[in-house]
Amino acid sequence: MRFNHLLGLQGLSREAITEILDSAEAFLEVLERPIPKVPSLRGVTIANLFFEPSTRTRISFELAEKRLSADVVNFSASDSSISKGETILDTTRNIEAMKVDVVVIRHFAQGAPHFLADRISAAVINAGDGSHEHPTQALLDMLTLRHQIGELDGLKVLILGDIAHSRVARSNIWGLRTMGAQVMVCGPSTLMPREVEEMGVKVTHNLQEALEWCDVVNVLRLQLERQAQGLIPSLRDYQRAFGLTRARLEATGSEKVIMHPGPINRGVEIDSDVADGPGSVILRQVTHGVAVRMAVLYLISGGDRAIG
Amino acid sequence: MRFNHLLGLQGLSREAITEILDSAEAFLEVLERPIPKVPSLRGVTIANLFFEPSTRTRISFELAEKRLSADVVNFSASDSSISKGETILDTTRNIEAMKVDVVVIRHFAQGAPHFLADRISAAVINAGDGSHEHPTQALLDMLTLRHQIGELDGLKVLILGDIAHSRVARSNIWGLRTMGAQVMVCGPSTLMPREVEEMGVKVTHNLQEALEWCDVVNVLRLQLERQAQGLIPSLRDYQRAFGLTRARLEATGSEKVIMHPGPINRGVEIDSDVADGPGSVILRQVTHGVAVRMAVLYLISGGDRAIG
Amino acid sequence: MRFNHLLGLQGLSREAITEILDSAEAFLEVLERPIPKVPSLRGVTIANLFFEPSTRTRISFELAEKRLSADVVNFSASDSSISKGETILDTTRNIEAMKVDVVVIRHFAQGAPHFLADRISAAVINAGDGSHEHPTQALLDMLTLRHQIGELDGLKVLILGDIAHSRVARSNIWGLRTMGAQVMVCGPSTLMPREVEEMGVKVTHNLQEALEWCDVVNVLRLQLERQAQGLIPSLRDYQRAFGLTRARLEATGSEKVIMHPGPINRGVEIDSDVADGPGSVILRQVTHGVAVRMAVLYLISGGDRAIG
Repeated sequence: MRFNHLLGLQGLSREAITEILDSAEAFLEVLERPIPKVPSLRGVTIANLFFEPSTRTRISFELAEKRLSADVVNFSASDSSISKGETILDTTRNIEAMKVDVVVIRHFAQGAPHFLADRISAAVINAGDGSHEHPTQALLDMLTLRHQIGELDGLKVLILGDIAHSRVARSNIWGLRTMGAQVMVCGPSTLMPREVEEMGVKVTHNLQEALEWCDVVNVLRLQLERQAQGLIPSLRDYQRAFGLTRARLEATGSEKVIMHPGPINRGVEIDSDVADGPGSVILRQVTHGVAVRMAVLYLISGGDRAIG
Repeated sequence: MRFNHLLGLQGLSREAITEILDSAEAFLEVLERPIPKVPSLRGVTIANLFFEPSTRTRISFELAEKRLSADVVNFSASDSSISKGETILDTTRNIEAMKVDVVVIRHFAQGAPHFLADRISAAVINAGDGSHEHPTQALLDMLTLRHQIGELDGLKVLILGDIAHSRVARSNIWGLRTMGAQVMVCGPSTLMPREVEEMGVKVTHNLQEALEWCDVVNVLRLQLERQAQGLIPSLRDYQRAFGLTRARLEATGSEKVIMHPGPINRGVEIDSDVADGPGSVILRQVTHGVAVRMAVLYLISGGDRAIG
Repeated sequence: MRFNHLLGLQGLSREAITEILDSAEAFLEVLERPIPKVPSLRGVTIANLFFEPSTRTRISFELAEKRLSADVVNFSASDSSISKGETILDTTRNIEAMKVDVVVIRHFAQGAPHFLADRISAAVINAGDGSHEHPTQALLDMLTLRHQIGELDGLKVLILGDIAHSRVARSNIWGLRTMGAQVMVCGPSTLMPREVEEMGVKVTHNLQEALEWCDVVNVLRLQLERQAQGLIPSLRDYQRAFGLTRARLEATGSEKVIMHPGPINRGVEIDSDVADGPGSVILRQVTHGVAVRMAVLYLISGGDRAIG
């Protein structure tokens, strides 16, 4: 199977997702070696174009690239020609003309990676576009679940929080549904997108009911500006209705796997004793993120060289 | 021939320019390889000191350096000690004391690279100083013309736009004149430097007349702040008198090679159907930029190791 | 001897400091080679986390890391999730979860590196915490003195300037005292910390008296905001009482070794003819900084591989 781009999980086949996850398992093993580095992408040049600020996703991609022995250049909005009025297409075409093989792009505009993929010959990986998709995040979430629990088929996953603005939620829903998992979303109605039921998920505004149902809770970060936007009455009200606490989890009488894409607002969407507690796989998600990105980069660059 | 520094094209001999362009041809061939990387500068440390924001020039140098296997450190004004009141000489001497072999510098002050070159022992490459010189840009423009058309001798090159504030224009004029090309400049009188006729170029304020004459148009970027500075009445007026359009080109009855150093203001100094049209070599310029910078870095670092 | 972290020089033994300085001597020799690079840390991943802006320390660490063949990722406050309200512990734990072996941290809060070292398994190197410690700066100062003069035992070192806010002063005092040197501090009483006499140093407010006594002057940078804070009457007054001038040095009748951690305020805490004069080892300090950081990184990563 050949991947030309990774733009989103919507429409990606079960076979393709499985191949990425299988390859990621091999790279997880590489990461455990004394020298966690392979020569697979020697001579491949990768540009990380981050039009939105990012710490963890940018560093995760950069580490994945360096551990594959690729050459890496970084571009962030702060040192950018966009302040000079250049279009994103011109910026990217220029960087491509420098013989860049892969473009990893994060952009505030939904669809920006798709727009570029249609117009340049370099491979494009979506590292987050607006509130649309963040496919490598959903892939790392699925890798973590496969490791932690086993098969995704039939698994009951709750996504909790601001579904409307979340690219993490959208990519997880597409990916999990394709892999046969059941998905429920829970959050205030002001943060629930209209089209969500058409995506094949259950919707509830009752957290306790949702927790009774699920095996896994993926807690989304609450952007604190939602309060100023009038979408939530206050952080305290949000926390009371939708914050994940130890007490709420214990009331269900069963253990749940706890996930969060980070960065965490401790005491808002999740309490510290849950985030750092026994069911939490939050830091394992981060480790798996590097492996998943290595796999995607490897497969997109041909995937025909030995992993090493 | 030994290069100690590359500060500008003023005074650089025909032989030196020819050697750089010949060497760049060899690196263009390297860039076409499956693994476009050579070990020529292994162990050489290069500092990119950008006191002015830059995307494309900084990334182009960085890629050139990495493809030569050099070790690279980046410094940009934003994370700088200049906010702490340190002089540029102290900043550079300090970085040199860390055993840096080559300093690539962009600075808003005209002459900054020359000032440093007299005072430090590292090799200095000017990546743009004020509105003075930008020698690697002119070299890549000449490499593109040599590829596209053949000999530079006798070629008629029009430089169009804000000549007064353009280091690209100045370096091109010096380089092209040395190589035997004829140069005409065209732009509003408010954007024409006093000394320009002494540089051996023809001057006109009539774009159609200039287009009739030339084989090549190098369109300069219009800095949009020129309007606020009262140097142009409005962008619309500028576009009407000096914007390069398909209609204007077709009125000349012959094909022209179209160049632009980027970033482009589409619809201001150049229309999209010209920038993306058949005569445009704008993206090829970008590719050639990496090869020219590899050549300059290679020659300045000794040039006695095999290109590989 | 094993180093798990380098948090400060307070409490570090004479044997440990000696081992670092001895190892740094070996790396100084590496830096003199045509290819100043060794494979010692191949496959080791180092994250440079700079929560405070820095040029020279960040570049010095980065060069040290690259010359040891480590893989390097950089994080600076400007592109940071701290703007998203994430705690420093979560940021660092996340980066560690990406299989980072060593964390080099600069933070405005005193004790931040110690806090992290207790909570993560990666090795932590303090690159400056508040006005507390800056151990690699003091180690490079000591390496410079050992090279320049010989034994530290019995050496008379004057630290001049804003002692109260200086992590450089604190680390130097701890390190020099451990190595058997005598230390005197001199500066205005408003910039003298209360606890300084308990650190085993002599205190004076009379610069001439201090200069008569010492073999070495380590001149601290004066943060220019001290004037606005009312801690000094004016820069001119400061300069008159505590600025190091050629005349003052000549009045002592003997040569002194002149040090400064940079960046220099020329004409404030030190005159140019002193900073650039015969006794100055300021640029040698910078070179030694790379060697000391290579030594610390090497020892902290096991130190059992050949230096190469």
